[in-house]
Amino acid sequence: MKDHQNVRQAATAQARRPRVPVVGMVGAGQLARMTSQAAVSLGIGFRVLAAAAGESAAQVCAGTQLGDYKSLGDLTAFGSECDVVTFDHEHVPRGHLEALERAGMRVRPGPDALRYAQNKRAMRERLTALGVPCPRSAPVASLDDVIAFAAVSGWPVVLKAVSGGYDGRGVWVCGTQEDAAAVLAHGLELLAEEHVAFERELAVLVARSPGGQAAVYPVVQTIQKDGICREVLAPAPGLSDDSAIEAQRLGLDIAMGLQVTGMLAVEMFQTPGGLLVNELAMRPHNSGHWTIEGARTSQFEQHLRAVLDLPLGSPTLTAPHAVMVNVLGGDNPDLVGGLVHVMAHDPAVKVHLYGKEVRRGRKVGHVTALGDDVEELRDRAWRAASYLSSGQDEQQ
Amino acid sequence: MKDHQNVRQAATAQARRPRVPVVGMVGAGQLARMTSQAAVSLGIGFRVLAAAAGESAAQVCAGTQLGDYKSLGDLTAFGSECDVVTFDHEHVPRGHLEALERAGMRVRPGPDALRYAQNKRAMRERLTALGVPCPRSAPVASLDDVIAFAAVSGWPVVLKAVSGGYDGRGVWVCGTQEDAAAVLAHGLELLAEEHVAFERELAVLVARSPGGQAAVYPVVQTIQKDGICREVLAPAPGLSDDSAIEAQRLGLDIAMGLQVTGMLAVEMFQTPGGLLVNELAMRPHNSGHWTIEGARTSQFEQHLRAVLDLPLGSPTLTAPHAVMVNVLGGDNPDLVGGLVHVMAHDPAVKVHLYGKEVRRGRKVGHVTALGDDVEELRDRAWRAASYLSSGQDEQQ
Repeated sequence: MKDHQNVRQAATAQARRPRVPVVGMVGAGQLARMTSQAAVSLGIGFRVLAAAAGESAAQVCAGTQLGDYKSLGDLTAFGSECDVVTFDHEHVPRGHLEALERAGMRVRPGPDALRYAQNKRAMRERLTALGVPCPRSAPVASLDDVIAFAAVSGWPVVLKAVSGGYDGRGVWVCGTQEDAAAVLAHGLELLAEEHVAFERELAVLVARSPGGQAAVYPVVQTIQKDGICREVLAPAPGLSDDSAIEAQRLGLDIAMGLQVTGMLAVEMFQTPGGLLVNELAMRPHNSGHWTIEGARTSQFEQHLRAVLDLPLGSPTLTAPHAVMVNVLGGDNPDLVGGLVHVMAHDPAVKVHLYGKEVRRGRKVGHVTALGDDVEELRDRAWRAASYLSSGQDEQQ
Repeated sequence: MKDHQNVRQAATAQARRPRVPVVGMVGAGQLARMTSQAAVSLGIGFRVLAAAAGESAAQVCAGTQLGDYKSLGDLTAFGSECDVVTFDHEHVPRGHLEALERAGMRVRPGPDALRYAQNKRAMRERLTALGVPCPRSAPVASLDDVIAFAAVSGWPVVLKAVSGGYDGRGVWVCGTQEDAAAVLAHGLELLAEEHVAFERELAVLVARSPGGQAAVYPVVQTIQKDGICREVLAPAPGLSDDSAIEAQRLGLDIAMGLQVTGMLAVEMFQTPGGLLVNELAMRPHNSGHWTIEGARTSQFEQHLRAVLDLPLGSPTLTAPHAVMVNVLGGDNPDLVGGLVHVMAHDPAVKVHLYGKEVRRGRKVGHVTALGDDVEELRDRAWRAASYLSSGQDEQQ
């Protein structure tokens, strides 16, 4: 018996079949892992560029190539075997993306769009030019700059690394000049933003294809802690039709204005004065994991349809409510071992484990519950996620 | 950049993680392909034993091993790296299954159960002993035997190969002695069965775990043509509660009586005189593909939960009705190319393509539509499946 054959041999075996389009996703985290599940149903080719064979998507995806997303050589070799190159993170250097495009590859989203997910200063300037409401912001290079900003916006001041942050990393809420000085000492390019006293956080997911078709999902409420998404309620409970339409319109306007291809997630603050856009991501996003069971088309299938310029799928809900709770790394190292308890307690909760080593606070899975009563769904999803995380039965 | 690494290296990279259970599925057709999608969500290990790298599941599953299911050596090597061995077909020789069990491997379903899916004569005798209503049947070795059987049951007589048949292969409806003589000339071990004038065909899916927990899905109507499943309506329209409960009880009784582990599909005839059991399969089954979107727990996830002795998932419907139509190979060799039309026409239909080379009449995919109105769903699913098959827009 031979071991598993490599991709090249599989490609040869497929030679008698009509050529199927191949999507290559740079990055092999859980977003790529869940996208690979969607690719299987569509019958397309799917490859991931992984740093290591143990990464979340690399464990399960037959089309895994090992390589470094910061190496133009690796990206070029990877992209040359794909019809479309897309991403499960925003960290590929812009110059490399441009080089892939110059080499004739389809990069979706392209560097001109992805720039606004990579550079918060460019994003703020562009959104403001598009008329999108945002928190007040200004680039800052010195403590004097921060003090001048605070003179208008007040303390605390939020300082953000212009590039490279995610999941709360690269964001500092500074209550004092001393806090700000400590952040400035990192020597990063920084943006100051007003600290918004929001009522809650919302997110809207939009898919847009190169041909310009767009589909927008119902607006969701997200609940973050320490900068990490903990819980998503779909649709956002009690949101007025006017606010929902405004949020969806903002999402659509941004997708069009920035010429996004694929999924766009727009994170927003709901405030007494209206909606303010906080962050953008141009890929499947944590705020859309509920769509796997909760929407007729999951964000992962939708992303593939969009980057392949296939007609987009229906984003409608499959149940009145869906609640997703992230499983963060905790005291329990054996997530799969925790399934017995969770499944016995709740035969209808949907668990997604990412195959990742447990580290404290790391996103290692998520749980989705679907039904009629939001509070009951929250109870169920939290109970399952908490058990998987801690190995103990405890409530939120 | 290195090519895709083999399974052994991936296993090494995972060594720091808690050991996860590995399910090995013998066979790499579409059932294994769809099971692999479910395995990803559970975070378990999943491997397939494939004859060739181009097979449906082997194309997408990182844990693919090449080997021959008729070779005990290949089966042993495969099984020794898995915690549980299961199957996407019934063709593994019984002696090999017994040898794997003797070697200490967990084989689920085990040879004593699987026997009744492998040998139709044993199945008929066992079901009759369990009090399960079946069509009249008798083993036949000569034309005289067939004539004697027809003297009681009338013509036509159905002759079935005792082992090895599937999708209508190994089944002959004989209207005359000449027809029967031609079948007898094949030299196969045969079973004669009465030709049942059924009203329609039903199927019930049951999951059973080694610990004895069982879960039964809503009864569905199946529509076959030339012995191949074409369409499944879930739940079976207009089925009385009494008949539904009787069918589900039969399914549960058979699963318990035969000590099945994993999914059991029971195909039945609905007749004016009641239900008669036609065929059994002990694996995920075509009559359950609708469960991917149409039930809270798909049959593929359920099979994995059952063979791992995890608590079973909820089999309840996610929509009032689900209709599944198979995509059979036709004039269109380029199934993925057909997606543009299908998706543009119907953004809510769910397409599953199996990555298989198109051959006339071969199952190469399926389509599922979900909603409130069965006839509308049938229209939509048939339109999509017909287009994929033929490359032309045509109605049933």
